[in-house]
Amino acid sequence: MTRRIVVVGGGAAGMGAAGAAKGTDPSAEVIVFTGYEDAAYSPCGIPYVHGREIASFESLFMATKQQYVDQGIDIRYETTVASIDVKAKTVTTTDGTVERYDSLVLATGFDYADPDVPNSDLGGIYYVKNIRQAMEWDKVLDTVKTAVVDEATPLGAEMVTALAHRGIETHLVDPAPWAMSSATDPDIMEPVQESWIEMGAKLHFNTKVTGFVGDGGKLREVTTSQGGIQADLVVVATKKVPNVELATAAGLKTGMSGGLIVDGRMRTSVSGVYAAGDCTEIPHGVSNVPIQGLSGSHAYAQGKVAGVNAAGGTREYQAVYVPWGMVAGKWMIGGVSFSETLATALGVPFVVGNAQGISRARYYPDVKPVKVKLLAEPEHLRLIGAQLVGGEGIKERADFLAMAVRTGITINDLATMENVYSPPIGALNEPISLAAQNALSKLGK
Amino acid sequence: MTRRIVVVGGGAAGMGAAGAAKGTDPSAEVIVFTGYEDAAYSPCGIPYVHGREIASFESLFMATKQQYVDQGIDIRYETTVASIDVKAKTVTTTDGTVERYDSLVLATGFDYADPDVPNSDLGGIYYVKNIRQAMEWDKVLDTVKTAVVDEATPLGAEMVTALAHRGIETHLVDPAPWAMSSATDPDIMEPVQESWIEMGAKLHFNTKVTGFVGDGGKLREVTTSQGGIQADLVVVATKKVPNVELATAAGLKTGMSGGLIVDGRMRTSVSGVYAAGDCTEIPHGVSNVPIQGLSGSHAYAQGKVAGVNAAGGTREYQAVYVPWGMVAGKWMIGGVSFSETLATALGVPFVVGNAQGISRARYYPDVKPVKVKLLAEPEHLRLIGAQLVGGEGIKERADFLAMAVRTGITINDLATMENVYSPPIGALNEPISLAAQNALSKLGK
Repeated sequence: MTRRIVVVGGGAAGMGAAGAAKGTDPSAEVIVFTGYEDAAYSPCGIPYVHGREIASFESLFMATKQQYVDQGIDIRYETTVASIDVKAKTVTTTDGTVERYDSLVLATGFDYADPDVPNSDLGGIYYVKNIRQAMEWDKVLDTVKTAVVDEATPLGAEMVTALAHRGIETHLVDPAPWAMSSATDPDIMEPVQESWIEMGAKLHFNTKVTGFVGDGGKLREVTTSQGGIQADLVVVATKKVPNVELATAAGLKTGMSGGLIVDGRMRTSVSGVYAAGDCTEIPHGVSNVPIQGLSGSHAYAQGKVAGVNAAGGTREYQAVYVPWGMVAGKWMIGGVSFSETLATALGVPFVVGNAQGISRARYYPDVKPVKVKLLAEPEHLRLIGAQLVGGEGIKERADFLAMAVRTGITINDLATMENVYSPPIGALNEPISLAAQNALSKLGK
Repeated sequence: MTRRIVVVGGGAAGMGAAGAAKGTDPSAEVIVFTGYEDAAYSPCGIPYVHGREIASFESLFMATKQQYVDQGIDIRYETTVASIDVKAKTVTTTDGTVERYDSLVLATGFDYADPDVPNSDLGGIYYVKNIRQAMEWDKVLDTVKTAVVDEATPLGAEMVTALAHRGIETHLVDPAPWAMSSATDPDIMEPVQESWIEMGAKLHFNTKVTGFVGDGGKLREVTTSQGGIQADLVVVATKKVPNVELATAAGLKTGMSGGLIVDGRMRTSVSGVYAAGDCTEIPHGVSNVPIQGLSGSHAYAQGKVAGVNAAGGTREYQAVYVPWGMVAGKWMIGGVSFSETLATALGVPFVVGNAQGISRARYYPDVKPVKVKLLAEPEHLRLIGAQLVGGEGIKERADFLAMAVRTGITINDLATMENVYSPPIGALNEPISLAAQNALSKLGK
């Protein structure tokens, strides 16, 4: 009998699951429900169109609807699943259609945490998520003189950069003392924050958004714990919260982060139901603490694992170490796993190694600084975290260091690493190696 | 009593040794002999000045002579060591000066293999090595219409790129069927070779230089196994041969590559005598075959190990896996350890994984292709080699993959690696991971 696989969600996790399911069992019937008009575009590109780094929203679409038809994936656009009956193995849409499944993959994503302040229903309050809405908001941005970005999360950092680049007076408001403080240390963020100021942005740290004040239903002022900011627009870039209402109503279990609990095969607590992406939580490889709200790349990889297993195959997902990276202000930043701030807060012992290196030979045109900060356990010397800020090669180094953390590479290994030396592409001394040497020297080694 | 450390050679290995020796034992007397007028410039930058990528030779100098004086390193410029008496522990210079040593570090570098053809003493035959000579040759290049590069070694590839970029009609002659064939496969080099042709270079593979024909003592024609090439200049970019005459005359042992045999502490076969850089040979970590002629970065690292040990400290150098990378034509290329060609020649079993990926989101400006080719052992899946060709992030990936080979990371690890996904700096799918997945799929995994 034909296997029937239903996927709820048309983002990276959902489309990854659908494609992998079809690849694993080409005879399977694969149905994807999405509440939106589109599937498979890159929401991560939206800030860059707003910032005029990318010319058009059209380029963000990855595949045409016909390509999914050709692949045999049946996408039901603008169709919201209202409930799941895990005993009957059916889903019911808001318009009353009932679909049976053999395997169900939930890829319902995230919502931004409710700012939980008065008047959050005013016009001019922008949640960056859907591409059609972004196209409308982009027209609004042409009329905006002053914008507030609520919280210096990764999206908040991208949006400050984008709006400032577009020439809008942009205020960043965050309750912590520096940007992206859950993943970073202040020494790493300092050049980024300086560059935002150079770009004309106003930074309000140690400051909480307390309310929105309207005028004829439209935002006029954002009130904060440090006073009011006159603004036409606020971008709500609060923490990502897993979207699990549908799942919990059906009895699926969530964990301490609020995300759906899944095992290595992305199976939820209910037989036949898989989950992937921002609606799940995944154990962190170093701390074993379940975390959620990872990248689109994680969502896609998890979706593929869920899809393979949902279609009768066998694939395991791993604990995550979460390499991250982005352009913020005039810099590239990135890292993996623990910052000094987080390790200190958790009471994890560590030694820090720092290095200020360069990306090419010091005399080669367009040579860029590359600052590396490494954290290692002082006893066995295993790498447990890294942060980088520089001008090029940040993403590739973060990927490398994530694998280093995962596979137990030590700062001894990194201190003695070989590196490519060629004037146009690499310096005599690799900054990662210099940072590891610095950490060893602090330990007297 | 003050320790006396004599270093022969003022390149990366020699200056690395001198600095590390002084750092290990600040009271030591450290003397460096160099036959040249300068120490501590970057010879690796010379092709880029010739190619007009770098504005001046002056920028290649890393430190002033005064800086070495301030560090307490006594450099004897334009002074050639003629002999070593390992029993008396002395060196004698060509002008008859005798210096006693407690530890001696030999960092005598390499020479280009003699092209061993008639008339190799003509004017117009250029060996790229010394910066003062390069300054003179750079003036000659202003008068050159047609140049031949003898052999597509890494230096040959850099010089073809540089001379073509400068607008000189450049012929590359190499006996192998493709460029840098000892480290690369033809599929990796194909785009590079196409780009050389686009830049106006003429490629003569499967062709050997057989002689030089002069006119009034100056080169007029390079004869090859496939006919003559009228040319004003030939760059001899043959294989690097270790410069060991001084050492072998003193009784030091050389290995199968012709380089000085050293142990992990860079000790030669004679007590109290260390060696580092291109005059030595180092075991390859995968094959255990001793190899020589590595990069300036290797020379510097080996020099530091030799210097530490020569000054009474303890440091170990490791087997090498030799990440390499460069700009060749319009591409960046790089890799580590075995190519498919070399693995096949050695009878090493392997599986290949290929991927054509991208460096940023496909819609982000200046996104570049990144092609990755991985070799792994089919049984334990350990990575044994990699090659890359692309537009950015090649050096950083080669460094990563070198550490992967060294630490036994498998294509399973790489297939499931996490990666940074952020439109301006990294694509959804990391090309290394895609190549590893491709290799696994060939093994039915």
